[in-house]
Amino acid sequence: MTPRGFAEAEFLTRLSRAQAAMQTADIAALFLTTEPEIRYFTGFLTRFWESPTRPWFLVVPAQGDPVAVIPSIGGHLMGQSWITDIRTWRAPDYDDDGVTLLADTLAELTPKGARIGLPSGRETHLRMPLQDFQRLQSLLPDRDFTNDANIMRGLREVKSEAEIEKLRAACTIASAAFSSVPDIARPGIPLAKVFRDFQRLCLAEGADWVPYLAGAAAPGGYGDVISPADDRPLAKGDVLMLDTGLVHDGYFSDFDRNFSIGRASPQVRDAHVKLIEATQAAFAIARPGATAADLFHAMDRIVTGGAGGSDAGRLGHGLGMQLTEPPSLIPADDTPLVPGMVLTLEPGIEVTPGRIMVHEENIVIRETGAEWLSLPAPPEIVEITS
Amino acid sequence: MTPRGFAEAEFLTRLSRAQAAMQTADIAALFLTTEPEIRYFTGFLTRFWESPTRPWFLVVPAQGDPVAVIPSIGGHLMGQSWITDIRTWRAPDYDDDGVTLLADTLAELTPKGARIGLPSGRETHLRMPLQDFQRLQSLLPDRDFTNDANIMRGLREVKSEAEIEKLRAACTIASAAFSSVPDIARPGIPLAKVFRDFQRLCLAEGADWVPYLAGAAAPGGYGDVISPADDRPLAKGDVLMLDTGLVHDGYFSDFDRNFSIGRASPQVRDAHVKLIEATQAAFAIARPGATAADLFHAMDRIVTGGAGGSDAGRLGHGLGMQLTEPPSLIPADDTPLVPGMVLTLEPGIEVTPGRIMVHEENIVIRETGAEWLSLPAPPEIVEITS
Repeated sequence: MTPRGFAEAEFLTRLSRAQAAMQTADIAALFLTTEPEIRYFTGFLTRFWESPTRPWFLVVPAQGDPVAVIPSIGGHLMGQSWITDIRTWRAPDYDDDGVTLLADTLAELTPKGARIGLPSGRETHLRMPLQDFQRLQSLLPDRDFTNDANIMRGLREVKSEAEIEKLRAACTIASAAFSSVPDIARPGIPLAKVFRDFQRLCLAEGADWVPYLAGAAAPGGYGDVISPADDRPLAKGDVLMLDTGLVHDGYFSDFDRNFSIGRASPQVRDAHVKLIEATQAAFAIARPGATAADLFHAMDRIVTGGAGGSDAGRLGHGLGMQLTEPPSLIPADDTPLVPGMVLTLEPGIEVTPGRIMVHEENIVIRETGAEWLSLPAPPEIVEITS
Repeated sequence: MTPRGFAEAEFLTRLSRAQAAMQTADIAALFLTTEPEIRYFTGFLTRFWESPTRPWFLVVPAQGDPVAVIPSIGGHLMGQSWITDIRTWRAPDYDDDGVTLLADTLAELTPKGARIGLPSGRETHLRMPLQDFQRLQSLLPDRDFTNDANIMRGLREVKSEAEIEKLRAACTIASAAFSSVPDIARPGIPLAKVFRDFQRLCLAEGADWVPYLAGAAAPGGYGDVISPADDRPLAKGDVLMLDTGLVHDGYFSDFDRNFSIGRASPQVRDAHVKLIEATQAAFAIARPGATAADLFHAMDRIVTGGAGGSDAGRLGHGLGMQLTEPPSLIPADDTPLVPGMVLTLEPGIEVTPGRIMVHEENIVIRETGAEWLSLPAPPEIVEITS
């Protein structure tokens, strides 16, 4: 395993890239409120974000180091990061939950008339009460809150080697867990128990935690890929699918595996072969010069004959500090692939009307082509016949 | 274990309470975007919210049933809920990610001039891109987007018996997992392994998943309560604290336990006794007629001598579909306790300068007093001396 966290140089590189982009976009400061955005610049890693109570803020000025404006409960942990300017208040404060402290910080770090960029485009949200944001704007009438010119998306879309190693570690853990599924799944075992035991496998293999597990088991394919488990026992003829996003040192894997409980039907076998064929077709062209849309079409040709998609809406996406990140593998996404992008390839196929199967792998784009991060599945669906 | 999900009557009761409150507040529709808000009215339970890509919307009109406006990938699962009016689009759509569909729905369900309530006060956020919200507003110039008059907070703060049973089940699972900690923690074992093994215990005891685990191990107390694990091996003299939020059928437990690795020092023993004393003092007065602030003061008197708090900011909070919910046990929160409120009691104490210990239990308010949901800890800290 690689060491935890990052060297300070990693953060300095991220900061200098951000500041160069801010100069170009005429943005005096980035104003960040979500977990991955704040962690990207600080390394601040905690599961405490699960609590929605307290807002957390990071200001990245166009010159100088980031300033954390955070609840005092996080002061000790943030104090262990490379950030030195940490301003805290005792949250929750019903009269003023950090808004004045934040406004004062932004006023100090940006000139009047400045544009303050906050991520506002697709796949973003503002993690603070809307009323507090409106109050912040009223406290700073001479500042223009605007989109971040997609600076955060651009930065995070391309991973450093240190990030890729963490993603590889997460994927290696997930690959090992999937290889043990035949030990925990057989006819008669409730799906909910398979879900619990699979998460235990992920942890035993070294996952720090397992933020995501969805899946299904149903005869000849399933209805969707986002359901939690029910208590229905596995039965012969079921296709079992497990799709996990586990975390190692703050970075996700995100891929799934399909299993046939008992012998697979010819339709299920063929569907799985096509899913692997589609994945391999996208992998083969995944290199600098291709676009996200190209990967979509390479897969869609095989799984739908080129119909242009399905209800899933896309056939893969970026992966990193979050389970899903830009870009999306859809016809409308012309993002050029560049070295360092980490992607999922996630084709789905309709086996019979209303019954689907989905397969997923994780890859990284390199100068000369793609490299697997997950251990790629063979064309033959694994049959659990014990 | 109680059956999964809720009877339809539960949702109808929630809806009629919401609609009564909307009449009073002159709100023509609630506009909801976050996981717990949408699940509260629909029962839509999926871990897919871990992906930030797609927005999800629910409109609760002042009369009639809720309308789901959601990505097509969720249509199958939402179709299994009691909701019948489900409008989908194929997300992600870079030109229009559900905004027009949502605007049309709001226009259909509310008259011109109507007030549309969205949760905007403390502990809320808007889970959609800010630019899309601004576009929504521009598409509906004749509607007034306003705070939800705290209707969602008020509804969710008081749990039904069916909800309390799910919370009790989650707490029972966590209590069982904590009782096995002496099997997984001893000198020489890295804290990160204890974290992994503790999550495995939670799953083995029946947790569906473990969204939250924080903790620490350090000599004579720890520096904070929100840190992830590091690889430092446990050593004699450490206080080990594990604080978990695990989920059973969509409802959380949230409490911690402290363990002494080897014999506890007198300071650590005394600190633990005081924490239990503080918890019991709050428990003793937790009944209708008391307020959230009263519980704070009952604990604060014992752990600080009445100093009025610490960096943690509060000494407990609500608990339910989220790890933390309103109210907060702070001096400023005068929320009256009513039967059905589920709370955590979470006093913290400074053992020596910079070294703290925190204890936490979960309770439900009943007509005549409080009832434990967690199995309350005894005053003596558990010593792991094997």
